[in-house]
Amino acid sequence: MASSADRLSAFFDTPLSVINVGLTSFADSLRDQQIAVTDVDWSPPPPGVPRLTHTQAGVSIDDANEEVIRRMMAGRPAIVGLGIARDVIPGMTDNMILHAGPPITWERMCGPTRGAVMGALVYEELVETPEQATQMAASGEIVFDPCHHHHAVGPMAGVVSPSMPVWIIENLEFGNYAYCTLNEGLGKVLRYGAYGDEVYTRLRWMADVLYPVLAGALELSGPIDLRGMIAQALHMGDECHNRNRAGTSLLLRALAPSMVRTGVAPEHVAQAIEFIDGNDHFFLNLSMPAAKAMLEPAEGVPGSTIITVMARNGTDFGIRLAGAPDQWFVAPAGVVEGLYLPGFTEEDANLDIGDSTITETAGFGGFAMAASPAIASFIGGTAQDAINTTREMYEICFAEHDHFTIPALEFRGAPVGMDVRLIMETGILPKLNTGIAHKTPGIGMVGAGVLRAPDECFAAAFEAVKVW
Amino acid sequence: MASSADRLSAFFDTPLSVINVGLTSFADSLRDQQIAVTDVDWSPPPPGVPRLTHTQAGVSIDDANEEVIRRMMAGRPAIVGLGIARDVIPGMTDNMILHAGPPITWERMCGPTRGAVMGALVYEELVETPEQATQMAASGEIVFDPCHHHHAVGPMAGVVSPSMPVWIIENLEFGNYAYCTLNEGLGKVLRYGAYGDEVYTRLRWMADVLYPVLAGALELSGPIDLRGMIAQALHMGDECHNRNRAGTSLLLRALAPSMVRTGVAPEHVAQAIEFIDGNDHFFLNLSMPAAKAMLEPAEGVPGSTIITVMARNGTDFGIRLAGAPDQWFVAPAGVVEGLYLPGFTEEDANLDIGDSTITETAGFGGFAMAASPAIASFIGGTAQDAINTTREMYEICFAEHDHFTIPALEFRGAPVGMDVRLIMETGILPKLNTGIAHKTPGIGMVGAGVLRAPDECFAAAFEAVKVW
Repeated sequence: MASSADRLSAFFDTPLSVINVGLTSFADSLRDQQIAVTDVDWSPPPPGVPRLTHTQAGVSIDDANEEVIRRMMAGRPAIVGLGIARDVIPGMTDNMILHAGPPITWERMCGPTRGAVMGALVYEELVETPEQATQMAASGEIVFDPCHHHHAVGPMAGVVSPSMPVWIIENLEFGNYAYCTLNEGLGKVLRYGAYGDEVYTRLRWMADVLYPVLAGALELSGPIDLRGMIAQALHMGDECHNRNRAGTSLLLRALAPSMVRTGVAPEHVAQAIEFIDGNDHFFLNLSMPAAKAMLEPAEGVPGSTIITVMARNGTDFGIRLAGAPDQWFVAPAGVVEGLYLPGFTEEDANLDIGDSTITETAGFGGFAMAASPAIASFIGGTAQDAINTTREMYEICFAEHDHFTIPALEFRGAPVGMDVRLIMETGILPKLNTGIAHKTPGIGMVGAGVLRAPDECFAAAFEAVKVW
Repeated sequence: MASSADRLSAFFDTPLSVINVGLTSFADSLRDQQIAVTDVDWSPPPPGVPRLTHTQAGVSIDDANEEVIRRMMAGRPAIVGLGIARDVIPGMTDNMILHAGPPITWERMCGPTRGAVMGALVYEELVETPEQATQMAASGEIVFDPCHHHHAVGPMAGVVSPSMPVWIIENLEFGNYAYCTLNEGLGKVLRYGAYGDEVYTRLRWMADVLYPVLAGALELSGPIDLRGMIAQALHMGDECHNRNRAGTSLLLRALAPSMVRTGVAPEHVAQAIEFIDGNDHFFLNLSMPAAKAMLEPAEGVPGSTIITVMARNGTDFGIRLAGAPDQWFVAPAGVVEGLYLPGFTEEDANLDIGDSTITETAGFGGFAMAASPAIASFIGGTAQDAINTTREMYEICFAEHDHFTIPALEFRGAPVGMDVRLIMETGILPKLNTGIAHKTPGIGMVGAGVLRAPDECFAAAFEAVKVW
């Protein structure tokens, strides 16, 4: 039967949302009656944060940021093919392993990144055991480089080794490329730091069966638009970071006819479709490089305070600004407040990890949380929390997206273009949602949760801007 | 940049939704600032409507309705196969045409139903031209029967002819079956009353290519759960009546591996997948029989005032009650307030038509509009209008659905089980959204829109209940 709130709403002609000051018990009473109450996580700006309008060199920061936003929104990322990492990723060498986040040495790497590196070295047949992999990794024979230094992105540990197949994304507007591995699914998977036969067997099947079907399909289909697919997925309950069920579904619709026409044995095609259907995160490894491909043309606009990279390696959290794209501003990675899989607790959790925050950087992911009430409830929140998160992120973003819109906010554009100035002025830190990896190499996923980005890297970036 | 409403929300700690009396200009002002304002379409109940608690035979109506709702929600509809109408639909004969809505003679049929009948007779090769079809239809040689008299449902004209392939849905909980044709897509299609070579060619391709691929796939896959698929689709922006993009996507994910494994030529499999991908309404012809399969076991509970059939033939609008399942209560079909395709106006529109209101009858469709802000905007409304529609429908429904939940309402169960008593007591008529067919046979779709169900049939049903 109808609730009392509905009867109340029906009795009066025009219920309103108005502003309340202080009376939280009144708010709780309304909330109990299922009337929408908006909580905003707000605190006064830190005293003494100046408004920066121009660089010392005289560049208008707003003008620079407008240009950055223009380029980000003009980008048209499309899947144009697949290839093997060593063949297609610029600068990739046979003794190189790429990882998520800012640069880091083997010695400082967290458990899951180490675990993924160890697994990758066994998978590459450079060693036979994880123990040998540890020795090789420590020996200096292997070059470790951030994905972001090679136009690539990787979820969680983000490890890319030379023989792995990768998606090739082209920004058709600007001609730049981005790269990402194929998503392995959940459970014992390399990106969460797991290694072992189950991991290698899956990776080999992906290279031997999945890759040729997908590569062949792309040759037949031609480019597949990702900007439109992300826009659609945002209208179908995804935020395209932690929820990718709609994106995965739309991708399969676009690819399946060509997969069937590749001439590959039907049983292999069927297995490839089943693998995609069995993994609602499959689209994540496309939404991420789509974001990367949209952001790179915006790098190098002098005077821009927009963040074009935000990434974590499980030890450090780093950002880069459009106005200084080669400089990392780094702070310690944060602790995730999460929900844990059975048998695990926060004691098991590694710190925040992965390049997947490229989605928030590009104007979707957690910043479009209002589009994805289901992901809010997955990590312990409500639909109203999801709306509040997006509303709050407008406060630190320079613009609203022309293409990525949010149904629950009357199709308002998602907040896009984190501006370091607004973060410092408002004291509002970017809100992230993420998976949680076990801190010990070789185990894998233990949960999912939320956290704020660490303030030190934004403060450091802001200080740098002051002397531009 | 952030809107003034967001800055206002950020400035105060806890904005609230409260009740306003009368000051509509204040409401408009808030709305202009993008603050949520709820409008409820409410009028006082008609004077003198008595609360019926028991039938004259002494049956508790609430108890009867509880049992009806229990059966509706316990239903587990699944696709179990496909077959040819004449072979699988009970009571179907070679000279029979099924149609949407309550019973109707050829003489009283509207243009689009006539057009679909004419097209079907040519498609069946019973005649060679639409003109000959008109003669045959008028001659008495053809038996016209409602889909609903044969455990079937059909969108728009709802015409089913003997050689058409149909989905077979089984309610695994109760063992009853429901049937529906395969969705043809938009444009010049039989269900909107179009006929001609384009229509016949598509129908033949569907029978010759699509049908064997799907039938073969179902044999390999086994039953495919539709209740879970509808529940998922409601979390992905569908209301599963006028928006079926998510449902169509999820269906393809479930079917595609088996389609590939049928052994049918890959080119035919690829064409079948492309056809489904090209038609976001493909899932409608599954959400409808799923609803029908969930409703039929609830029919025949003495004393129940829950509506178990609501359907239109383009001339008449009819309902049936769970307590008297063989009796139609009929009123003139309504005029749709709509948006029109280029070149058409309301002058061209037929009256409200189709069995697709079985979705609202089962607790989704327009009643779950809050799950589908995109469909609200498609027919000219806002996300807030969609929420208001669902909130209003709670007023005339007996329960909230255990399985079909609405993210934007904090995963509250959708309104389910229209109770004729509540409709009469509140004066709130069921709100429907629908496609619009051209009133002339042979043309097809001209728009989409919304309307209220006509009050006379509910009033007639209520009078009947009084003497049960």
